[in-house]
Amino acid sequence: MSELKNDCLMRSLLKKPASRTPVWMMRQAGRHLPEYRKLRRKAGDFMSLCRDPKLACEIAMQPLRRYELDAAILFSDILTIPDAMGLGLHFVEGEGPKFRKPLRTERDIKSLSVINSEDDLAYVLEAVSLIRKELDGSVPLIGFAGSPWTLAAYMIEGKSSRDFVLAKTWLYQHPEILHQLLQKLTLSLIDYLNAQIVSGAQVIQIFDTWGGILSDAAYEQFSLAYTREIITNLISRYEDREVPVVLFTKSGGNWLEEIAASGCNAIGLDWTVSLREARRRVGARVALQGNMDPTVLRSNPECIESEVRRILDSYGSGSGHVFNLGHGITPDIDPLHVSVFIEAVHRYSGA
Amino acid sequence: MSELKNDCLMRSLLKKPASRTPVWMMRQAGRHLPEYRKLRRKAGDFMSLCRDPKLACEIAMQPLRRYELDAAILFSDILTIPDAMGLGLHFVEGEGPKFRKPLRTERDIKSLSVINSEDDLAYVLEAVSLIRKELDGSVPLIGFAGSPWTLAAYMIEGKSSRDFVLAKTWLYQHPEILHQLLQKLTLSLIDYLNAQIVSGAQVIQIFDTWGGILSDAAYEQFSLAYTREIITNLISRYEDREVPVVLFTKSGGNWLEEIAASGCNAIGLDWTVSLREARRRVGARVALQGNMDPTVLRSNPECIESEVRRILDSYGSGSGHVFNLGHGITPDIDPLHVSVFIEAVHRYSGA
Repeated sequence: MSELKNDCLMRSLLKKPASRTPVWMMRQAGRHLPEYRKLRRKAGDFMSLCRDPKLACEIAMQPLRRYELDAAILFSDILTIPDAMGLGLHFVEGEGPKFRKPLRTERDIKSLSVINSEDDLAYVLEAVSLIRKELDGSVPLIGFAGSPWTLAAYMIEGKSSRDFVLAKTWLYQHPEILHQLLQKLTLSLIDYLNAQIVSGAQVIQIFDTWGGILSDAAYEQFSLAYTREIITNLISRYEDREVPVVLFTKSGGNWLEEIAASGCNAIGLDWTVSLREARRRVGARVALQGNMDPTVLRSNPECIESEVRRILDSYGSGSGHVFNLGHGITPDIDPLHVSVFIEAVHRYSGA
Repeated sequence: MSELKNDCLMRSLLKKPASRTPVWMMRQAGRHLPEYRKLRRKAGDFMSLCRDPKLACEIAMQPLRRYELDAAILFSDILTIPDAMGLGLHFVEGEGPKFRKPLRTERDIKSLSVINSEDDLAYVLEAVSLIRKELDGSVPLIGFAGSPWTLAAYMIEGKSSRDFVLAKTWLYQHPEILHQLLQKLTLSLIDYLNAQIVSGAQVIQIFDTWGGILSDAAYEQFSLAYTREIITNLISRYEDREVPVVLFTKSGGNWLEEIAASGCNAIGLDWTVSLREARRRVGARVALQGNMDPTVLRSNPECIESEVRRILDSYGSGSGHVFNLGHGITPDIDPLHVSVFIEAVHRYSGA
């Protein structure tokens, strides 16, 4: 790992001792940064930023100039694959992602083609290469995608939702059709994530943002089974280095044992789970990433520092902890509070 | 228990053998029933129905005429206490509950008085008496209220919310003020729930609808500690019969052991938890109530029956299971599907 100047993240994800607990934030590149909002205003909409590799690279670098982060993450969206499949992804201010052509019938699903990333998502791969080059070995680059179930849920619902009733109704009423969709997404995701690795991503994170709305039985069949298939088929070493996989399942606290057995190197945890309890439940198998409630960043420096300490203490002294928020940082957060957060993680965990 | 004709629910909540698995549904009296919608159109708004004991009684009885339910539940709202405290509860179609005067400052909290149910919530107690009388011992009557944290979250936020950012910001920024509010709510709830018991409620359910959005540490301090205090102070026997307490925490799967130790008789579970796993984790201490995803009721009779069987099988053969949905039934459900559901529970669990 000689070429990587800061290898804390890689070491911690592989459960090797590191000089301090590495920290990064989900959505670290984005709306909480004034410099991002400026670029966004110029470009117009969110997808124009994602589709322009130079802009995407610039945005991925922005948080690294402000904060001492231990990782960069690709600037993109979890829904690029459904967009490449022709569903017409766009964003409506304050409402999140929407599809112009959500899936409504069995025929809609039959007509979808497995994507070929080199052709269909070249703009993402180019962004990965550019960011990797720009990082110049300072910190590792995380690539990512949404899980098959999470993509399917948005594709059927057509937009974000509290409980994804349409998607879950399909699950109960037409499970075999949903399985066809999940299989196409799984093949597309294997291709896409491997292409990200070949283009320069050194870590992969899979976001199962909506796994947690499923019943225990449905989660295994319709979400974890497919994510497991993806992990099995990812390139596990590239350029003589292991490529760790983080599986983040929002509200997945009930299934830590099953997630730990999925083949992932680390489990991403939201704030409802105690790190100590999670470690006890999964044993020494995997690293743990998380898990401060992003709302803490709205409070004040004293409170932020005390929560950081509480979370570090609850993990304890072993290796294998990557500090993160339990979900993405929200647009309302003051960057000064983020600095307090990042510095606190380093100060309290450092040798 | 001689006067109760159907004592399946009481027996199961107390972990005694019952002739079949009892079943009831959260929000069984409400918008999925055409006869309810008719009354609602006449009365105008939701709170007018709650405030009229005769109407509330009629509505509580409606689902019992259609379905072979093993319990009735008081028709009311979890937010009657904040309303009695002067916050001005009202309902906006499609948006859920709202308060005219949400809590904004420390002074707002200091000016709140602990309620006296006999004076401030007489209409609820009268509804309890009437329903109990109308039931005439056919099935037991469940009384209920929201947990202190759930009430506080709505009172600060002023309305429903995906993540209750304002309430959680208070929690981190002004924990001592939030504790003052929770203490007032706890005292009010002890008074209110005991008054429901004295008026005729034979089971109490506490809804901690928003406990699951808290961090592990905050859940213990700001939610469970207060609910525990309530349970400790409830009348445990009345009219020579135990009064079982069900604690339902939506998304509370991470904390089953702690909930089981709260003093409750039964844990209400949403669908993300496997009943088998829940039973393994909490041992023989408490009964378990749940946990079919209400979305299943949108599918078809075959699917409903197979989910019922799967859930009964996952609980196994021991006593102490009360069948329910994992959250309230939604307005879009066809009553014919509900009949299939209730009958399936009885058929597959009956002797």
